Amino acid sequence: MAGGRCRPLAGPGAAELLASVDTLLFDCDGVLWRGEQAVPGAAEALAALRRAGKRVFFLTNNSTKTRAMYAAKLGRLGLGGAERDVFGSAYCTALYLRQVARLRGKAYVIGGEALSQELRAAGVAHLGPGPDPVRGGGAGDWAAGALDPDVRAVVVGFDEHFSYMKLTKALGYLRDNACLFLATNADTRLPLEGGAFIPGTGCLVKAVETAAHRQAQIIGKPSRFLYDCVAAENDVDPSRAVMVGDRLDTDILMGFNCGLKTILTLTGFSTLEEAKSYQDSDCPTKRSMVPDYYVHSIADLLPALQA
Amino acid sequence: MAGGRCRPLAGPGAAELLASVDTLLFDCDGVLWRGEQAVPGAAEALAALRRAGKRVFFLTNNSTKTRAMYAAKLGRLGLGGAERDVFGSAYCTALYLRQVARLRGKAYVIGGEALSQELRAAGVAHLGPGPDPVRGGGAGDWAAGALDPDVRAVVVGFDEHFSYMKLTKALGYLRDNACLFLATNADTRLPLEGGAFIPGTGCLVKAVETAAHRQAQIIGKPSRFLYDCVAAENDVDPSRAVMVGDRLDTDILMGFNCGLKTILTLTGFSTLEEAKSYQDSDCPTKRSMVPDYYVHSIADLLPALQA
Repeated sequence: MAGGRCRPLAGPGAAELLASVDTLLFDCDGVLWRGEQAVPGAAEALAALRRAGKRVFFLTNNSTKTRAMYAAKLGRLGLGGAERDVFGSAYCTALYLRQVARLRGKAYVIGGEALSQELRAAGVAHLGPGPDPVRGGGAGDWAAGALDPDVRAVVVGFDEHFSYMKLTKALGYLRDNACLFLATNADTRLPLEGGAFIPGTGCLVKAVETAAHRQAQIIGKPSRFLYDCVAAENDVDPSRAVMVGDRLDTDILMGFNCGLKTILTLTGFSTLEEAKSYQDSDCPTKRSMVPDYYVHSIADLLPALQA
Repeated sequence: MAGGRCRPLAGPGAAELLASVDTLLFDCDGVLWRGEQAVPGAAEALAALRRAGKRVFFLTNNSTKTRAMYAAKLGRLGLGGAERDVFGSAYCTALYLRQVARLRGKAYVIGGEALSQELRAAGVAHLGPGPDPVRGGGAGDWAAGALDPDVRAVVVGFDEHFSYMKLTKALGYLRDNACLFLATNADTRLPLEGGAFIPGTGCLVKAVETAAHRQAQIIGKPSRFLYDCVAAENDVDPSRAVMVGDRLDTDILMGFNCGLKTILTLTGFSTLEEAKSYQDSDCPTKRSMVPDYYVHSIADLLPALQA
């Protein structure tokens, strides 16, 4: 198992690559924008891709926004794109529960309002988000806390109200091996503007996994499910598609897992040094995280499109 | 590296073993009691050991009780024992910060009131326990949340008020590699009476480790630090000491790590089947978790003491 060769994408090579694909899958944060600032040239690059007849989709692990919220942000930053082009982990988790797992009963959700909205839109019954502070007088009360007998799945997404009581309830449900265990994503940190970051959903997932002695099924990248959702709704040929992302361990690895071409853009999380260091790794997973190409910014795609 | 042979401790073998040791180290929950019920015969066994001139100490990973609280419970259940005989993970964490790390500055504590009390008694300045619910309007506010510039250590113990905000603060402190990172213990579950259990400290530790991209130093068993505290205060010869516990992965492994004899008692967490299955494991750590002896209950020690 070997990944890509991590070549710079420029000149005739860039035009050749773009001619060989008809679908581009973009991660969002760190690729198209950082916080509320679009990456310079991103709008022009996306517009040129669309003019050249390429299909453009957006794949994000972030579970704190609905499809509609992403479409609104794409519009606000001049990037274009409709709700149907956005495949976020909240939306795809709802799809999974409805279409793949065909969940009967409810989901117990550690997560935020956007995840709840996507579940509601998909008709997935669930126990909603919000604070769940300490109740009762001690350990016995927490262990005996009322569990809903209709719950058949535990879903973990980003939740700023994550608490010990939520962890205890998740464990209570997951003691039943028939209870599904899903996580929107496993990112360990959520980068913010200016180099700041906060704990990511992966931290909450690890806490629940450690309590339950079980591993969650991850919906987000590097799992292939977001791509499968795009392909199911849009008839994509993986040999004519490219994944463009800023993270080796999610975007590029998912691209590899799905047989797509991959481009690392250096406006976000991962560095070129990291990508190059993985080329000679004795770890197959690390070699799978080496992209085929890299660009300093997706604006670097523009010259090849204007030629 | 090989562990013990998992022989039943009875008859002449038991008398021989007890003659070969002068110090017995007991785990508490699952060994001496379950909840508020003493294990039948435990009081008699401890009394007989003391009459035979043996020294008896109590080593517990539970960080939710102080030395004084443990001494009170030992008295209440007729088991005897003074504060100075109790080595809990809360007390030993305080010792570590004061005597080993010689902490200058404060500790940021994810933990409960007992841990705070032990830190206070040891003169370790710290930011105290209690609820820390969501504040501010969003991710930027949480990342920018006020951090105390005097904090030089993060300590994770059992905390029913564990929250995303606490996780975010811990990450904020641990970004500085000079900040110590300790955990009272890494038990994944806390067993209660009647087969119930709740998430253990290990779940909270994993969440913080995942965010910080660092591993906590564990104070509790199977780390040897609790034993080192006993030995420092009491001049113990490890070749004449035995660890008696109900968990292979903490009690027995610590005994092995410290060069002690080990006895598994079957009144608690681990089973004889589990212990036997580890004998032929190809994993050295699992083989290190095989006890030298097992008893069905520590009351089984009585006949050898009454002979």
